[in-house]
Amino acid sequence: MARKPGSRAEITGPKLRETALRLFARDGYAAVSMRQIAAEVGVQAGALYLYTADKQSLLFDAMSDHMEALLAAWRAEAPKGDARDRLEHFARFHIRFHAARADAVFIAYMELRNLTPENFARIGALRSCYEAELESILRAGQDEGTLTVPDTKLATMALIAMLTGVNTWFREGGRLSRDRVEDIYVDMVLNAAGARV
Amino acid sequence: MARKPGSRAEITGPKLRETALRLFARDGYAAVSMRQIAAEVGVQAGALYLYTADKQSLLFDAMSDHMEALLAAWRAEAPKGDARDRLEHFARFHIRFHAARADAVFIAYMELRNLTPENFARIGALRSCYEAELESILRAGQDEGTLTVPDTKLATMALIAMLTGVNTWFREGGRLSRDRVEDIYVDMVLNAAGARV
Repeated sequence: MARKPGSRAEITGPKLRETALRLFARDGYAAVSMRQIAAEVGVQAGALYLYTADKQSLLFDAMSDHMEALLAAWRAEAPKGDARDRLEHFARFHIRFHAARADAVFIAYMELRNLTPENFARIGALRSCYEAELESILRAGQDEGTLTVPDTKLATMALIAMLTGVNTWFREGGRLSRDRVEDIYVDMVLNAAGARV
Repeated sequence: MARKPGSRAEITGPKLRETALRLFARDGYAAVSMRQIAAEVGVQAGALYLYTADKQSLLFDAMSDHMEALLAAWRAEAPKGDARDRLEHFARFHIRFHAARADAVFIAYMELRNLTPENFARIGALRSCYEAELESILRAGQDEGTLTVPDTKLATMALIAMLTGVNTWFREGGRLSRDRVEDIYVDMVLNAAGARV
């Protein structure tokens, strides 16, 4: 008989992932124990191993879930228009997607060092896929003549760092609304990429 | 009698700071014990307390030393010229200073959450001082008409994030030399800040 929706296993799996992400972001991967995660989820420590192989798997899953969701969301946007328009679309998308996932973004940067070499390579490959999406826009812009950057690879890294940086300082209810911040960043991104006005 | 240069205390103090910084960057603040730091420094755990009050002080000292050195180094540069020239100078300075201090930069971002509220506020104040140096260049540029940014505060955060991002991917011996990377970033920074060519 199939499990009913809302069965214990279907609730515990997502709750475990959400809890691990939150605790890793708050205390750091190395400082969090499986026992502590189990207590927060509300199961016995031994029961965790029905859902995950080990703590490393929880970290890897958190990081790969984040990167896969990012890639899928971007591909679903499938922006039209010339490279300048698509670059603007990318900037707005990147800010919005990351603003809603502060813990995952923090972990993605901070806990790379705690991945096994194999898992590190797999996350690196996912990141490269996302970077390639932006780089292809910059390349198209060079070809069309709508964008001018001295090096598409470096411009990709520079623009992603600039846009992700919003997460380190933006707080809802501050001096500027989220929309206004987005507009200002779009302006700077287009300028940095030498967009013809 | 004054201590001779090279006495045990004069060697242990700096070695302790250097070791704490390295271990915090490698394993994370929460995962590193005073016992482990003592073992790496080569003293008994109890002897550490001749040099530092506690682990929190080691973290705070690492972060404040870094910020104070950054501010002092920038002020020693005292660049001349118009705002466009000073912005270029700032970009080159920022990349070079941070490239040489990967551990300190990593900790500065990652371990903020492990500072006590009082120490957090003190580090925040030092950061604001540094950001104010860049913002004053952007303001001067607006006044002179050599730079155009939609918001000097946001442009400050965006440019610092972009420049610090170099640390996350640059490796000596890669496709581009350090000087070439610097030139490319200068170009993007000036464009992002709407510099008149």
